[in-house]
Amino acid sequence: MDDRMAKQLAFALELDKEKNVFRQTHLSDHGRNENDAEHAWHMAIMAYLLKEYSNEPVDIAKVMIMCLIHDVVEIDAGDTYAYDPEGLATQKDREEAAKERIFSLLPDDQKKEFVALFEEFEAYETAESKFAHAMDNFQPLILNNSNDGGDWKEHGCDAATVYGRQSKTKLGSEKLYGITDKIIQENVKKGSLKQG
Amino acid sequence: MDDRMAKQLAFALELDKEKNVFRQTHLSDHGRNENDAEHAWHMAIMAYLLKEYSNEPVDIAKVMIMCLIHDVVEIDAGDTYAYDPEGLATQKDREEAAKERIFSLLPDDQKKEFVALFEEFEAYETAESKFAHAMDNFQPLILNNSNDGGDWKEHGCDAATVYGRQSKTKLGSEKLYGITDKIIQENVKKGSLKQG
Repeated sequence: MDDRMAKQLAFALELDKEKNVFRQTHLSDHGRNENDAEHAWHMAIMAYLLKEYSNEPVDIAKVMIMCLIHDVVEIDAGDTYAYDPEGLATQKDREEAAKERIFSLLPDDQKKEFVALFEEFEAYETAESKFAHAMDNFQPLILNNSNDGGDWKEHGCDAATVYGRQSKTKLGSEKLYGITDKIIQENVKKGSLKQG
Repeated sequence: MDDRMAKQLAFALELDKEKNVFRQTHLSDHGRNENDAEHAWHMAIMAYLLKEYSNEPVDIAKVMIMCLIHDVVEIDAGDTYAYDPEGLATQKDREEAAKERIFSLLPDDQKKEFVALFEEFEAYETAESKFAHAMDNFQPLILNNSNDGGDWKEHGCDAATVYGRQSKTKLGSEKLYGITDKIIQENVKKGSLKQG
């Protein structure tokens, strides 16, 4: 096996560890916690399925690969809950170190390519990044909603905090943000989410 | 919410069940069994990562979405182990019924599109299908190899049976089949796989 392929396969095997990074979101039917690999898989299919709702035309291959790799750094940095201020304060540094270590397993040209995709996602500027982020918000939202907002109840979340994150969905999809808003309001009414 | 979006979101939520369909393959570091969603996620990234090794040029978006949805029918039909003759005998009928039920959750145009992608994968004829199948073989192979062939040992597999399936990898990628052959031979030498 040549050096290039050895590096590619080392990276492929390293990715396997993402299946052991568990998130705060629970699977539907009040299931167990979801892991990062499952979340990314679900996001990528939803991106393909719902692409007609992107505000702008998107290169769907780019959106899918962004969705698939956007949490790779959590192999080292762990999952940071979207509504946890302490975790959020150190998230950037932890994830920078992880990005350098993990993508350095790749041949140089692919390291550049994957880092660029990862950074484009993080920057939230291109049409593809905005739509991929909409999926990153919307996928756990529909799971959580199917469980009567159980994840929000568990963390005592309030609507203002949830809107703070979820309102960015409208940058990628006004249409999906309409549904998001409706789901948040229903969960406030049901008492799963504190008015705030 | 209009009827079209309601159908799309019902399908998106149904997909969640694939995270509870467990396979015979174990995660690296002698981990737990892998589920279908994790397997599909890993395959789709590997397709993108290793696309230079496809025998023919491929539309990578198509390969990725094929990888992501290729096991959806197992929500109803369950996982059939690649080296289980009894399961394989009834697999087709179980999966046909599942395909009809699950994709019928979608709006008609998307039902047609997803069924066509699923059937193109199954037919093993196009460049995209052949390369996606190569990933379906190669992804569990590298996990199993990282665990010293533990999955083969558990099922008492012999090399001839494994070659029967894995040799089709060469239809999608001669280069990855070269590595496959090397891995099988090493596992025969180590005694993880019976000479057969």
